[in-house]
Amino acid sequence: MSKQTLSYQEAFVETTRLLEGPGALLNGVRDDGAVNTMTIGWATFGVIWGRPIAVVFVRPSRYTYEFMEATPDFTINVLPDTMGKALAFCGTRSGRDVDKFAECDLTLVPGREIRTPSIEEASIVYECRTLHHNDLDPGSLDPSVRESYYPSGDFHRCYYGEIVACYGSLG
Amino acid sequence: MSKQTLSYQEAFVETTRLLEGPGALLNGVRDDGAVNTMTIGWATFGVIWGRPIAVVFVRPSRYTYEFMEATPDFTINVLPDTMGKALAFCGTRSGRDVDKFAECDLTLVPGREIRTPSIEEASIVYECRTLHHNDLDPGSLDPSVRESYYPSGDFHRCYYGEIVACYGSLG
Repeated sequence: MSKQTLSYQEAFVETTRLLEGPGALLNGVRDDGAVNTMTIGWATFGVIWGRPIAVVFVRPSRYTYEFMEATPDFTINVLPDTMGKALAFCGTRSGRDVDKFAECDLTLVPGREIRTPSIEEASIVYECRTLHHNDLDPGSLDPSVRESYYPSGDFHRCYYGEIVACYGSLG
Repeated sequence: MSKQTLSYQEAFVETTRLLEGPGALLNGVRDDGAVNTMTIGWATFGVIWGRPIAVVFVRPSRYTYEFMEATPDFTINVLPDTMGKALAFCGTRSGRDVDKFAECDLTLVPGREIRTPSIEEASIVYECRTLHHNDLDPGSLDPSVRESYYPSGDFHRCYYGEIVACYGSLG
């Protein structure tokens, strides 16, 4: 798939449409070069510190967490509508137990600007360099959110990545 | 100005274009009904907890901070290009010293869904109900960000608002 440079603005409608539906894939890389991916349905995009920023959310219990902590960059890979099955698989299985890329016929390609690879089959890729992380504050969460999403604790860590490259095909 | 319901997706390009330029106005309301506004240049938008979310950033030293803490809702008011002067004024003066709305000929109108008013002259309004706040973690900030934006501390508090109404005119 031929991928052209996109602004984070023009990619937003398609990205959030898919996030709200089947999700997208968040890739991280470990010191030993291993790559993991997980399906995400949440992210925000905009401007902070005068830079284009994407924020993603990862629970410490997830296998992806150790990849996010190991290397300060990540990719968000928005897959086309036809790949809902891969997203469902990557959202329900752990990379601890299975090679998600092999199982789902997903092809890793080197990042253009960062260490974390992207996914060739993605329609939109965001390469992000982590500038910050903080944690949700359990004491200030709206009760309806806390009850629905955190019955056992395991509050998300928020990773703020500068979008250093965004490319794809909006179709 | 006649304002129509917008999705947060379709409002994103115009909102971030203006945030990156002259900014937008963040309104909050206090228990006594007083309203304050400040110019913001940073915000993110997307989906968290299955809901449309806007995140804004306020330093505890700002007068607006006590309004954000007092009432768990806020409005983001995107002004048209012609109102750069009002944005510059509201970004350099404090509501402790001056009535920004009167000085800038800005008209407050009641929120449709929340207690915080919006600004009649805005081209896009987001009404947000605060679901969460957390604070930047000084220890995990990229050094370049920390040196540029936090030489004296005063790290931002992040307010996560569910977008309960979005309306305006995209021109």
